[in-house]
Amino acid sequence: MSSWGNYLKISIFGESHGGGIGVVMDGLPAGEFIDREALLLQMGRRAPGKDKAATPRSEADTPEILSGLLNDTTTGAPLCAVIRNTNTRSQDYGNVLSCPRPSHADYTGFVRYHGFNDIRGGGHFSGRLTAPLVFAGAVARQILARRGIRIAAHISSVGALTDSRFDPVQIPADLVERLSTTTFGLIDTDKEIPMRALIEEHRQQGDSIGGTIECAITGMPAGVGSPMFGGVENVLSSILFGIPAVKGIEFGTGFEGTLLSGHEHNDAFRYDGDTVRTVTNHNGGILGGISSGMPIIFRLAIKPTPSISQEQDTVDLTQKTNTTLAIKGRHDPCIVVRAVPVAESAAAVAMLELLKDVNML
Amino acid sequence: MSSWGNYLKISIFGESHGGGIGVVMDGLPAGEFIDREALLLQMGRRAPGKDKAATPRSEADTPEILSGLLNDTTTGAPLCAVIRNTNTRSQDYGNVLSCPRPSHADYTGFVRYHGFNDIRGGGHFSGRLTAPLVFAGAVARQILARRGIRIAAHISSVGALTDSRFDPVQIPADLVERLSTTTFGLIDTDKEIPMRALIEEHRQQGDSIGGTIECAITGMPAGVGSPMFGGVENVLSSILFGIPAVKGIEFGTGFEGTLLSGHEHNDAFRYDGDTVRTVTNHNGGILGGISSGMPIIFRLAIKPTPSISQEQDTVDLTQKTNTTLAIKGRHDPCIVVRAVPVAESAAAVAMLELLKDVNML
Amino acid sequence: MSSWGNYLKISIFGESHGGGIGVVMDGLPAGEFIDREALLLQMGRRAPGKDKAATPRSEADTPEILSGLLNDTTTGAPLCAVIRNTNTRSQDYGNVLSCPRPSHADYTGFVRYHGFNDIRGGGHFSGRLTAPLVFAGAVARQILARRGIRIAAHISSVGALTDSRFDPVQIPADLVERLSTTTFGLIDTDKEIPMRALIEEHRQQGDSIGGTIECAITGMPAGVGSPMFGGVENVLSSILFGIPAVKGIEFGTGFEGTLLSGHEHNDAFRYDGDTVRTVTNHNGGILGGISSGMPIIFRLAIKPTPSISQEQDTVDLTQKTNTTLAIKGRHDPCIVVRAVPVAESAAAVAMLELLKDVNML
Amino acid sequence: MSSWGNYLKISIFGESHGGGIGVVMDGLPAGEFIDREALLLQMGRRAPGKDKAATPRSEADTPEILSGLLNDTTTGAPLCAVIRNTNTRSQDYGNVLSCPRPSHADYTGFVRYHGFNDIRGGGHFSGRLTAPLVFAGAVARQILARRGIRIAAHISSVGALTDSRFDPVQIPADLVERLSTTTFGLIDTDKEIPMRALIEEHRQQGDSIGGTIECAITGMPAGVGSPMFGGVENVLSSILFGIPAVKGIEFGTGFEGTLLSGHEHNDAFRYDGDTVRTVTNHNGGILGGISSGMPIIFRLAIKPTPSISQEQDTVDLTQKTNTTLAIKGRHDPCIVVRAVPVAESAAAVAMLELLKDVNML
Repeated sequence: MSSWGNYLKISIFGESHGGGIGVVMDGLPAGEFIDREALLLQMGRRAPGKDKAATPRSEADTPEILSGLLNDTTTGAPLCAVIRNTNTRSQDYGNVLSCPRPSHADYTGFVRYHGFNDIRGGGHFSGRLTAPLVFAGAVARQILARRGIRIAAHISSVGALTDSRFDPVQIPADLVERLSTTTFGLIDTDKEIPMRALIEEHRQQGDSIGGTIECAITGMPAGVGSPMFGGVENVLSSILFGIPAVKGIEFGTGFEGTLLSGHEHNDAFRYDGDTVRTVTNHNGGILGGISSGMPIIFRLAIKPTPSISQEQDTVDLTQKTNTTLAIKGRHDPCIVVRAVPVAESAAAVAMLELLKDVNML
Repeated sequence: MSSWGNYLKISIFGESHGGGIGVVMDGLPAGEFIDREALLLQMGRRAPGKDKAATPRSEADTPEILSGLLNDTTTGAPLCAVIRNTNTRSQDYGNVLSCPRPSHADYTGFVRYHGFNDIRGGGHFSGRLTAPLVFAGAVARQILARRGIRIAAHISSVGALTDSRFDPVQIPADLVERLSTTTFGLIDTDKEIPMRALIEEHRQQGDSIGGTIECAITGMPAGVGSPMFGGVENVLSSILFGIPAVKGIEFGTGFEGTLLSGHEHNDAFRYDGDTVRTVTNHNGGILGGISSGMPIIFRLAIKPTPSISQEQDTVDLTQKTNTTLAIKGRHDPCIVVRAVPVAESAAAVAMLELLKDVNML
Repeated sequence: MSSWGNYLKISIFGESHGGGIGVVMDGLPAGEFIDREALLLQMGRRAPGKDKAATPRSEADTPEILSGLLNDTTTGAPLCAVIRNTNTRSQDYGNVLSCPRPSHADYTGFVRYHGFNDIRGGGHFSGRLTAPLVFAGAVARQILARRGIRIAAHISSVGALTDSRFDPVQIPADLVERLSTTTFGLIDTDKEIPMRALIEEHRQQGDSIGGTIECAITGMPAGVGSPMFGGVENVLSSILFGIPAVKGIEFGTGFEGTLLSGHEHNDAFRYDGDTVRTVTNHNGGILGGISSGMPIIFRLAIKPTPSISQEQDTVDLTQKTNTTLAIKGRHDPCIVVRAVPVAESAAAVAMLELLKDVNML
Repeated sequence: MSSWGNYLKISIFGESHGGGIGVVMDGLPAGEFIDREALLLQMGRRAPGKDKAATPRSEADTPEILSGLLNDTTTGAPLCAVIRNTNTRSQDYGNVLSCPRPSHADYTGFVRYHGFNDIRGGGHFSGRLTAPLVFAGAVARQILARRGIRIAAHISSVGALTDSRFDPVQIPADLVERLSTTTFGLIDTDKEIPMRALIEEHRQQGDSIGGTIECAITGMPAGVGSPMFGGVENVLSSILFGIPAVKGIEFGTGFEGTLLSGHEHNDAFRYDGDTVRTVTNHNGGILGGISSGMPIIFRLAIKPTPSISQEQDTVDLTQKTNTTLAIKGRHDPCIVVRAVPVAESAAAVAMLELLKDVNML
């Protein structure tokens, strides 16, 4: 299902080479001013062609808001935004009709939909479908910011090249501000040159490379989230795995934390004035599924872009034979870069859902 | 929310030291024979006191089935099982009323429920609440097995000690059978002695240690799962983060796979007779959220048990002062061991949900 | 599905002649004191054998609360109550295995569940399953009363004999109090003798009779409910049709109101101090799906009890022949009487759901 | 919430005088051919200006399908249709900003959304929002027809003038075909002249009149629907009350059936060849919430259109005083006529949901 949410429902539609894509957001609070410039800024961060590490496919990607806003203020009725598909070159994908691209959804989508799914450009499975998600997140983050909640992510690694990590106990507001408005987000900006070089190297080889994203949510009050299946981790992961190429998520110390003993990993509580805080934040701001008031921190594993131009082994579903495939078309050699604002956006939508769960919205 | 599922709904209830715990399963197919011995075998794998690496708290944990079964066959009506709480020693937890245990849900639950939640033994946040989840999974796996789908997990690491990994392309049926019925699941059984030694060492120090679990689902047909938010990864993670102490999940190569380039990571398609298979399975049996027919493989990060008997820094919420805490009571020094059947169980429930989504149940 | 609700989820389980029946309520606010005497009073209103117009089957129907309450106060965790089945005489229903009772769910349940459903006493379709619904409602109405919201229903007709109707603009508090605690609820108590006589007449003939229930909800603030499918009417009807034998629902003037012209039917607004009220209340307190602040009023159509002892035509599903059936067992000749507290209870649960939707709970 | 459905989700958006309205359908089966002419025919039945008994406001109401269709065949991805708002005259509604129209959602919407909702033309509460519902139904009914399921409704009354009723046991296919394609649906077409005269009389008086709609669903197999809250009645009513002005629903004999005794009302089973049928169909094709294989029959109560041009008492929310209001603008004197295809459409969507619940879709 391309619908998500229990309290704040989003419904995403569209196929890469169809008439248009978009999103309906149902359950937004009324009376929230939405800055259209800020929306476009976020859309632009994800848009192709904005950064040379990304695909040259360039699109206006300007959303048209059909409903739910009056005088740039939410009415409480569902907000629908539509983005037209304009710059499509379907012939690039002609050969995937019978020969599924390795590590793509071509084959599984074919089986799931009995061959009826639109496979041009990946159809509904295309990374382009993250545009409406970024739109939804751009709306959500304005509502969150008004309540002191902010979200920022960065490229924490490309291949073996790593950025610094967030200090999980204290994340500077100016860092959050910078990361949440840039297109090649790094804590340690010195890493930009080597990372771009690594990506460019893979592009020239007709290859691609994976990476990781680290995301922080600051200002979230303690006590948000519900036990068992309504926890912050459940809600975040259920939306974040909707981003293509995400193959893992960890909160706080995550997998590395499993090497620690309890006395090393436990986050001691201390009063900071009247506020209870933890001295460390190995749990990533979440205890028992519920926010602790510390920054919420998670990392995503992004697999290498499956679309590479090197020849690959595949099958011909029509001929029922083995064959090879060389993917044409324009593709990101490292999808991590553009996935950064998408991760922030999904997290923003999830935070609205969680706040509504505890009557804070 | 302690309810989960859209097609097959489970609703888990209970607190560690209350009258009882249990689960309602709504949406099971009618006419499925349920072997009660097999249920008890699975319940026993998770039960405390069964393995010396776990807490000595021993409970009958025998579920009473109140509804939904007639002649040991599902009626199609909701199946409710209740497990009584019998062996509770609430005085062990007396001091946590005002002093939250670090890295536990005591503090966040207190804020979430304004101090009204039952904190004896962790209340509704207790690991004991995984017993009804194992019950639900034990029902689910019998229904799955009848359709050729089997689930097995193992302790893939305790601290820095690692077990072998599954061969993601071909998992022997006898290995699956062995792992899914044991209490200290390892592929490489030679690792049992050193792992138990490491756990025992932490116990003697009043400490604990984390670890990871690897889980495989075999026999899942291709084409199961839905795009975006209805994918196998979304559905699995949304239930698996309901298991206490889970702080990360990765599918296929996960975080390690981000180091690879596309030509290394992509899984080539090949015909195996009439069946399309992949030569490698770096994607963990999931492409675009939909099963590929290859084994579904995921790993979980389990943080070190937060309940340790060493003295720790915390706060006194009543006095509003900093203080220290030494947790009494009986606790697992490594929760990974008992979490193995819980992970399998949650995965089994998720598979029923996914099969029903595509009309295969 | 026997689960209901988006914000406050209830999951009802059990079969008439199984081990027990019950309900899980997930999403209750924490910190609500629950008076157990008041619970039993409500359970008693629905219980068989309490009123001579009802079936003589007598059961303790005492719910055991397994979770979610500590010191008689909600913890915020799911509240589960179990009611044991004790007084069952399955042999009374022996013949329905192959011969479905006309107007019952025997046949449709058989088809739906491929013959695996428990048909003893109606199984999961039994009117007995309204006991957990009354329990849930009894919890809900205490939470509502604390917020000034009260619910009362009465027998508005048995066959052609009618009670007076509520004054939809002003419902006296003492009438609400009286109706919500009685077992044969009438506004005009003079109607009790003729109504009981009519019911008794049908009992003696081995027959049954239908009727209607009118229900009022007072104290509901204006602005509760959401547009289109989240309206008060949608939410109420989606739960009320879960009561067996309900075949119709109308709000305000309902079907009679269709005879009116707009100028007769429209409810004029007037200020009453600072409060906006309507002069009439033909809309039953709901405009555009949202509460207007006036009493919410609905009526239910209850078909005649299908279990009658007169011989009836049916089929033998085993022999695949036509045959006749005389139903044995103990049955209510007019289910309307006991359905009154069930209707109130379902409405109470629905009101909690609606209040939570607008952050008022 | 303007979203509906568990298996087949629809999400409706738009405001009467905003940029556009539309619907996203998520969960449609792939591979279904959709005849665009048939879609337009259904849209046309509801469109204003097509029938002189309706409002003269004329709109193209031509939906643009943005996604989910390829070569006029469903792809399985969400189908989104957008209808532009072109013919809006907002000044007609200028005075309702402060003075809520009696029996409309103006006042309750104002309270619900704290004054931020778009009230021009009723905003999201406008009857115009039924256009996307008719679109969704028009898609659904083509999928249903391919499985032998058909839906037809008629004006069963306008004020006190009544049409004949369906024979609930046998509904001729040609009648279903005729009704499901006409704009003034009557079984007894002789009633058209007097009904139109009655409507015209109310129009000339600046008044309106209510009525009822009867709807039949034929070809539905037995065994569809789930117990308690997943029954056919629950599902149908939860969507049908989303149609503005619907104030009541009854299935089978409904309220009239409450006058009957059990021996009169019970529907005897008989074999018709190998098929089990009922001799009568007082239960409207639904037993215990599950379809019996007989026609499903329900009736809706439609209140008189609240928009009348006669002067009415209301309040001025800005001045906080009582005042009067004369509504300008173009309105249907009897909304029943155009609500007929809307009722059919909502029923069609509900049938898809129910079929999917039992794996028949």
